[in-house]
Amino acid sequence: MSINTQQLAEFLAELNYEQIPEHVLDRTEDLFLDWLGSALASEGARPIPLFEAYAQKMGPADGPARILVNGRGTSAYFAALVNGASSHLVEQDDLHNSSVLHPATVVFPAALAAAQDLGKSGRELLLASVAGYEAGIRIGEFLGRSHYRIFHTTATVGTLAAAVAVGKLLNFNQQQFVHLLGNAGTQAAGLWEFLRDAADSKQLHTAKAAADGLLAAYFTEQGLTGAQNILEGEQGMAAGMSSDANPSKLSDRLGSRWALAETSFKFYASCRHTHPAADALLDLMQREGLRHGEIKQVITHVHQGAIDVLGRVLVPQTVHQAKFSMGTVLGLIAVHGKAQLTEFENLSLTDADVAAFRDKVSMRLDPEVDGAYPARWLGRVEVITTDGRTLRGAIDEPKGDPGNSLNRSELEDKFRRLLAFAGKRSSDEAGVLIERVWRLRETDDLSNLIL
Amino acid sequence: MSINTQQLAEFLAELNYEQIPEHVLDRTEDLFLDWLGSALASEGARPIPLFEAYAQKMGPADGPARILVNGRGTSAYFAALVNGASSHLVEQDDLHNSSVLHPATVVFPAALAAAQDLGKSGRELLLASVAGYEAGIRIGEFLGRSHYRIFHTTATVGTLAAAVAVGKLLNFNQQQFVHLLGNAGTQAAGLWEFLRDAADSKQLHTAKAAADGLLAAYFTEQGLTGAQNILEGEQGMAAGMSSDANPSKLSDRLGSRWALAETSFKFYASCRHTHPAADALLDLMQREGLRHGEIKQVITHVHQGAIDVLGRVLVPQTVHQAKFSMGTVLGLIAVHGKAQLTEFENLSLTDADVAAFRDKVSMRLDPEVDGAYPARWLGRVEVITTDGRTLRGAIDEPKGDPGNSLNRSELEDKFRRLLAFAGKRSSDEAGVLIERVWRLRETDDLSNLIL
Repeated sequence: MSINTQQLAEFLAELNYEQIPEHVLDRTEDLFLDWLGSALASEGARPIPLFEAYAQKMGPADGPARILVNGRGTSAYFAALVNGASSHLVEQDDLHNSSVLHPATVVFPAALAAAQDLGKSGRELLLASVAGYEAGIRIGEFLGRSHYRIFHTTATVGTLAAAVAVGKLLNFNQQQFVHLLGNAGTQAAGLWEFLRDAADSKQLHTAKAAADGLLAAYFTEQGLTGAQNILEGEQGMAAGMSSDANPSKLSDRLGSRWALAETSFKFYASCRHTHPAADALLDLMQREGLRHGEIKQVITHVHQGAIDVLGRVLVPQTVHQAKFSMGTVLGLIAVHGKAQLTEFENLSLTDADVAAFRDKVSMRLDPEVDGAYPARWLGRVEVITTDGRTLRGAIDEPKGDPGNSLNRSELEDKFRRLLAFAGKRSSDEAGVLIERVWRLRETDDLSNLIL
Repeated sequence: MSINTQQLAEFLAELNYEQIPEHVLDRTEDLFLDWLGSALASEGARPIPLFEAYAQKMGPADGPARILVNGRGTSAYFAALVNGASSHLVEQDDLHNSSVLHPATVVFPAALAAAQDLGKSGRELLLASVAGYEAGIRIGEFLGRSHYRIFHTTATVGTLAAAVAVGKLLNFNQQQFVHLLGNAGTQAAGLWEFLRDAADSKQLHTAKAAADGLLAAYFTEQGLTGAQNILEGEQGMAAGMSSDANPSKLSDRLGSRWALAETSFKFYASCRHTHPAADALLDLMQREGLRHGEIKQVITHVHQGAIDVLGRVLVPQTVHQAKFSMGTVLGLIAVHGKAQLTEFENLSLTDADVAAFRDKVSMRLDPEVDGAYPARWLGRVEVITTDGRTLRGAIDEPKGDPGNSLNRSELEDKFRRLLAFAGKRSSDEAGVLIERVWRLRETDDLSNLIL
């Protein structure tokens, strides 16, 4: 086994609660609240009821783990599956930039389901979640940009991140973590192909990543052995699914760098690849006092990954696909000044001004932006006005990034907006849930965390 | 969507029982019996009890689908999972040469579980299984040799083959089959890396392929949409997991070529890559009246795939790994004349003569053998005797291949050997099961197929 995998497994085995800085624990609670809101916002929305029905058909009638959107008890596997699908649907869950991984939607469903199944405390849940984030982010960075070009990193790497979180709840030692990576890595799957058809695979990906990661951990605990070098071996993940893997990323500053704290919150309800340009355009329009009708053309200067992911969506056919349309997102910003869930739901497909603006927007690969990516997501737009001026907008850290993050008050607002969007829970319930999450580290019993 | 995928989906939707030639239906029953024996042979053997325990922990207390090794009722998902693990353990299940796919171990567990769940007949099970074989084999051929170098085709392609079989039981139309391929293909996973560590992943792979394929079909039936071009698209399976994909293979002689009937039965209890050399050596030793002590050196002339899969195993540490050791397999043949389950269990790790013979065996890439592969698996060995002679052995179709197949009497013998190996079922029981399988097409109720 390689030294990098060895070091990562050793770190994961030895990581303890006391060692995690206070600000990282705080941020973990922030991320958990953000995740919970994202999951609850999906209540009743297609295709989540399909996952609920599947859990009922294939799973037990009751169990110690809870499905968030309907409150039903089930086994840990099915809770992870349904909650994994739920939390990625409205595209409001977190993102880690340089790994291009959405950690929350895979780590928390698996960790919470296993914690409820195993009777663990809030502190143990936080510790496990930190382990999942730290491992997942480093594995995503290790697999590099070539991986993300074809594979949905949150699905593939997500399987390992979820597995690690559950392995930590099961108190794995170093050798067990190595087996666990093997058992999770050999199940890692998820292709971007679905995106151009607006297919439902994104929910399937996060559901399966969370559930398969949990499955890998429970099997490993029972003694199922895995490949010892699944990440770096000659027939392992990097060999099969990457052409620019960097093994040193796996053990990058373990114990001193807290990658979890680098995770960005989503401010707009769209694919994160649209956010830098959206912020840059908004900034420019406010600065210049420009209105959407005065704009003739917008050229967004982007990284290659944005073109790969967004380039297929020309005229969005569904609200979900609209979140992957650069033109639609900038249209919502330009015309309505906002691109939250409500705007997507009500305006993204039907508003004539937004549609007209969409057709003015193009993407262009920019060497500076591409060179900075994925460590930094620079926003650069070039606007040509109807009266012939060329204006430029630039932001270096989009809203929600670590240096431009959301504070607890903003996170609470976002949480309340998410619950209001689903329309199934009262403002009082939202308040209770917020309080519970802010007291997560004092909670001994997670079985009734959610109302 | 591409024309090849379109044609494949159309064929699958329109395939009906009457259209399948009698000899193909006969062969499907042959393959089913062979599969059933392989599954039952694993009863009690590690790691199968781990899968049984997982199904009990995560699944329902009872259900319409049966776990073969313990007879318990459960949901279709968990029956497919456990039976998928079971049927690949003893390495006696079938193999299709040119796709390098083991179809039975993924198609039958999913098809039988779904048929029991849905109350389908034996004829419907046979039709669905034919669909799974025809699709899986063509998709394996499509992904080509480069795929198999890193990915365990039975795991990856197996997910789609299992899905197709279940989709046929659900009476999918062409468009549903396209969605189904998308939903299954984006879950396709399985890396060869485990093999050098003798890890348990092979069982995890077939278990997950069968279960995930079934999951994909049930979700598709409920309306979950999938990528329309998962096989050939720019971010699909071939793009991510192959460098020599050949789209024309997907629609190769649909309806006139019955790929199922090309499937080989395993005669030896080892990895199929060892069989051509084993037959060639046995033939040479019998022809020359040679004994193992008279052999100084054996050079097997093999295809690259054999080196990729077998090359990592030098001194096997487990019985399972011994099945992937060319030297051990040839040692059993040379010393004991046989390499069935009993020889592997009792002699492969402990017999001093076998170990000594093992060290005399090497593999060498042979252009002729490699050029014929994977359509034909040629056996070529070069033997240097202790008295200095160089002898050559050659067979062009190893025992079990379509042109050198097992007849029903040989298949019954193999089935009885497999059940006797596990030692859990009487000879009478074996006889009853054989009779039931030979009457599969007259069976309306599959719920109690297995005792």
